[in-house]
Amino acid sequence: MSDINNIVLGIDIGGTKTSFGFVDRKGNIIDANTIETKANESAEKFVSRLYQKIEEIRICLPSTSSLCGIGIGAPNANYYRGTIEKPVNLNWGDIVDFVALMQKFYQVPISITNDANAAAIGEMLFGDARGMKHFMIITLGTGVGSGIVVDGHLLCGASGVAGELGHTVVDPEGRQCRCGKRGCLEAYVSSNGVVRTVLKLLAERCESSPLREMTHHEITSKKVFELAQKGDKIALEAFDQTARILGMKLADAVAHTSPEAIFLTGGLAMAGDVLLKPTKQYMDYFLFNAYKNTVKLLPSGIETGKGAILGAAALILNELAL
Amino acid sequence: MSDINNIVLGIDIGGTKTSFGFVDRKGNIIDANTIETKANESAEKFVSRLYQKIEEIRICLPSTSSLCGIGIGAPNANYYRGTIEKPVNLNWGDIVDFVALMQKFYQVPISITNDANAAAIGEMLFGDARGMKHFMIITLGTGVGSGIVVDGHLLCGASGVAGELGHTVVDPEGRQCRCGKRGCLEAYVSSNGVVRTVLKLLAERCESSPLREMTHHEITSKKVFELAQKGDKIALEAFDQTARILGMKLADAVAHTSPEAIFLTGGLAMAGDVLLKPTKQYMDYFLFNAYKNTVKLLPSGIETGKGAILGAAALILNELAL
Repeated sequence: MSDINNIVLGIDIGGTKTSFGFVDRKGNIIDANTIETKANESAEKFVSRLYQKIEEIRICLPSTSSLCGIGIGAPNANYYRGTIEKPVNLNWGDIVDFVALMQKFYQVPISITNDANAAAIGEMLFGDARGMKHFMIITLGTGVGSGIVVDGHLLCGASGVAGELGHTVVDPEGRQCRCGKRGCLEAYVSSNGVVRTVLKLLAERCESSPLREMTHHEITSKKVFELAQKGDKIALEAFDQTARILGMKLADAVAHTSPEAIFLTGGLAMAGDVLLKPTKQYMDYFLFNAYKNTVKLLPSGIETGKGAILGAAALILNELAL
Repeated sequence: MSDINNIVLGIDIGGTKTSFGFVDRKGNIIDANTIETKANESAEKFVSRLYQKIEEIRICLPSTSSLCGIGIGAPNANYYRGTIEKPVNLNWGDIVDFVALMQKFYQVPISITNDANAAAIGEMLFGDARGMKHFMIITLGTGVGSGIVVDGHLLCGASGVAGELGHTVVDPEGRQCRCGKRGCLEAYVSSNGVVRTVLKLLAERCESSPLREMTHHEITSKKVFELAQKGDKIALEAFDQTARILGMKLADAVAHTSPEAIFLTGGLAMAGDVLLKPTKQYMDYFLFNAYKNTVKLLPSGIETGKGAILGAAALILNELAL
């Protein structure tokens, strides 16, 4: 049963859409909605529009419900400063003090962090990381995000933005990354990375495949996954190469923080065992002896589609210790 | 002035020698000595011999001095279990409960961790990491060790042995590492790694060099350093390639825990700016934008030769909060 006397608002700001929902301390989403994130809109206009939409569902909540805080997951969010800094897909300028903008409308505690960090707290409060002191979550979507929990606390580091495994180096002479660097993990193991690997394989291999009838932009990681399930050689090899690189870099990650478990989430993680099983095998292969059998690789324990809002809500629930 | 009423014993167990010393809470080494670590001796015999030697200097301490605890730095030490596990260079079997062995002789709090972790705590208490909440130390010796401090605490992780950056992957098809894996960082950026890089360069390049008159085992990282200072092209290139790989993997490390500073210590770090300057440049080059200008690369602030004992002593001083 949900306790609607103390609720929080979880907001997940994505490049194309922003989801938000009221959540109780047990992780029940009481009501939720979505608005478009308009890339060319100013941050001020965006917040004002978001406020309108939040209030539309807020007035339907029981009168006894009390909003205790707001948690926000957003790209390039700095936990310490409450800012969103140089977001790649938004026209918000260099640094937006997003928490201050929100506080014009809501005089409650507000926290912000990047979406992967929020997902980590969500997994800790409502998913399969409950009771774990050391774990890590990797979000495999358009890009690659990561949230690291150490001794039960989100690792933010000196900069406030620790845990950007998507921009560790796979190959210093490798693929261009949208961040400007070369050979970043994100350029290989994101949904976009899988498509790039397919293109590379189409060049290198001779096997026939329906993928040869698609343009670059027609190929999606979902289509590659579906073809892999049907036994398409190119698609299977693309997932194997993706898994090898991911497994290798996860073994590196273990050599840093030694988590009890690594959770995979995001669009590409929906490939399930097609990705998870070989990734686990490669990770174990690359693991330093001292870490063998100390770390599990698991799918997120949060219901598909709920992770973003629950993660953002968990961020503030965790801080308020509700 | 030293406070000898409350002292601790710091012990550093190395592959060939073991150093120990009595240390006060301000980091003054009151007295110290060294014994040989005999590779073929049992752990029990080693501890018994160590005890004799410790007592030899202990009886010379003022009668008012009180031993409050013992800190130990050792290869493959597990902080949580108090054990030394599968040490590569010692004939001690799979798992030695080293803390229990020591406690037969000393009924005081005893803690053990690997030497790089001890160095991290030493740097935090007595070196240039004083006041830092997030930092990392890299020991560049025969091998590569690392100690990571997060939120002011040593990161041990779920396994108890977090922070083994020496065994992250530089090249999955690369050099054999003594750990059994291939292409580990340690195979490239240790003192031994530099020598291997020289051998590779002697094969690839045509420049004349005194290094061509030395056998593999005659070449040492110290000699390579001395030749680099004299402008030897092979030696300079060896340090540049070492710095590039180290800089790249340090940038990866920053993307995990986002430290305020990374300290370099150990034999190879004595090359000073010959290694430090290019490593900093490469690290900055490989850093993800969000971390630019957030992390310093520094030499250890602990006096050369004192780090091992002070690190081990700091481990227990930190726990006792003396």
